[in-house]
Amino acid sequence: MQIRVYYEDTDTGGVVYHANYLNFCERARSEAFFAKGITPVLESGHFVARKLNADFYASAKLGDELEITTEFVDMKAASFTLKQVVYKENKKIFELEILLVYITFEGRVQKLDIKSKELILSLFK
Amino acid sequence: MQIRVYYEDTDTGGVVYHANYLNFCERARSEAFFAKGITPVLESGHFVARKLNADFYASAKLGDELEITTEFVDMKAASFTLKQVVYKENKKIFELEILLVYITFEGRVQKLDIKSKELILSLFK
Amino acid sequence: MQIRVYYEDTDTGGVVYHANYLNFCERARSEAFFAKGITPVLESGHFVARKLNADFYASAKLGDELEITTEFVDMKAASFTLKQVVYKENKKIFELEILLVYITFEGRVQKLDIKSKELILSLFK
Amino acid sequence: MQIRVYYEDTDTGGVVYHANYLNFCERARSEAFFAKGITPVLESGHFVARKLNADFYASAKLGDELEITTEFVDMKAASFTLKQVVYKENKKIFELEILLVYITFEGRVQKLDIKSKELILSLFK
Repeated sequence: MQIRVYYEDTDTGGVVYHANYLNFCERARSEAFFAKGITPVLESGHFVARKLNADFYASAKLGDELEITTEFVDMKAASFTLKQVVYKENKKIFELEILLVYITFEGRVQKLDIKSKELILSLFK
Repeated sequence: MQIRVYYEDTDTGGVVYHANYLNFCERARSEAFFAKGITPVLESGHFVARKLNADFYASAKLGDELEITTEFVDMKAASFTLKQVVYKENKKIFELEILLVYITFEGRVQKLDIKSKELILSLFK
Repeated sequence: MQIRVYYEDTDTGGVVYHANYLNFCERARSEAFFAKGITPVLESGHFVARKLNADFYASAKLGDELEITTEFVDMKAASFTLKQVVYKENKKIFELEILLVYITFEGRVQKLDIKSKELILSLFK
Repeated sequence: MQIRVYYEDTDTGGVVYHANYLNFCERARSEAFFAKGITPVLESGHFVARKLNADFYASAKLGDELEITTEFVDMKAASFTLKQVVYKENKKIFELEILLVYITFEGRVQKLDIKSKELILSLFK
């Protein structure tokens, strides 16, 4: 996935505001669903971030074109983990490992059914 | 209402990103509800922006403390209009006139009932 | 310009947060520069919003694909005006008229030189 | 530091968008400087996120009042680490450990001088 850096993404330090790399990675995760004609909101629930580790290696500035890759790490009964990397001119500038938990619309953790597990594997593996 | 300018509010131009003044004004509108122990989400619907005019007179930068005033303009069957001004050191830097329409949770415009009208008047007039 | 609606663009009302339409329009303006291999930051200054009028006709939600058009309205000594429209499935959902002023990096309004005027006309007319 | 949840902080899932907790924590870090009458931009440089670990324990919604605490973890030659916790009604809902590196305005890592080290200790320890 390609992402362009706009004014809204930057801050007065002249570079992309740190939290916005999480937005970029979320776009890439959602786009995997949209590309299949569906949304990340499934029949019985949706996904929320439970834990993440992020490394910032270099900065990006207004007008930069970034590339995001998303790699499947593993899956548990009610969650899965992805590794996402943001590149600028083929150089890794940001790396995220994120654990996403499946919850009901009321906010309770729930196990992924077979259909949802297969969907995730088809999208990210 | 007092608002501090943080990194997230600024852009690479070194000042507050233009659209964020709308966020500041929205905070002031919502805070009027919160201060009464309620939220802007009423029993049968909520409010959405229908029309707005904004003037940008001067800029604000990281660390600035801004003051926002909200003034009632008028009310119609299903909407009301507010005028909001953002000040920096007693100087007007931004001015907004915004028409807010009352809609159902399904998105249809609906008339304000007496209770909702009285609430709006008590909050903003 | 095509824009996808992601989680970050929405709010708890289930639709795109009103101020984010201004972000979408800013992306389209900047993209006009980026597409030419330049940025909106020119040699002697850059552009800031001075005045805008916005109309919200309908809402957009997670996953929607929006189309943005940008039309030149007019140009003065130190400013120019654009009209931008956001469409969802060929239906106009948002319209913006925005007056952009050219300022120095110190924040003073300055006249557009011939080169900058020609650039703006080539980008938006 | 107290933070109110506004519309802009939420997403269509009905809760605070995950990346916005990083914004809340950044506000608390900057506010430590502002409260002393200074900004996080020092004479010879400023701070950028280099690494962070975040845990999301529970969600927050529109109107919630959150409390943020910031605790000093340690300091190295050119960086320091903070632990920040977001509470909702005295319950921990988010926890962040963030490594901040001191860089020049050109983006190079630089050692913290004695004055900057003392400042950081006075603000966060």
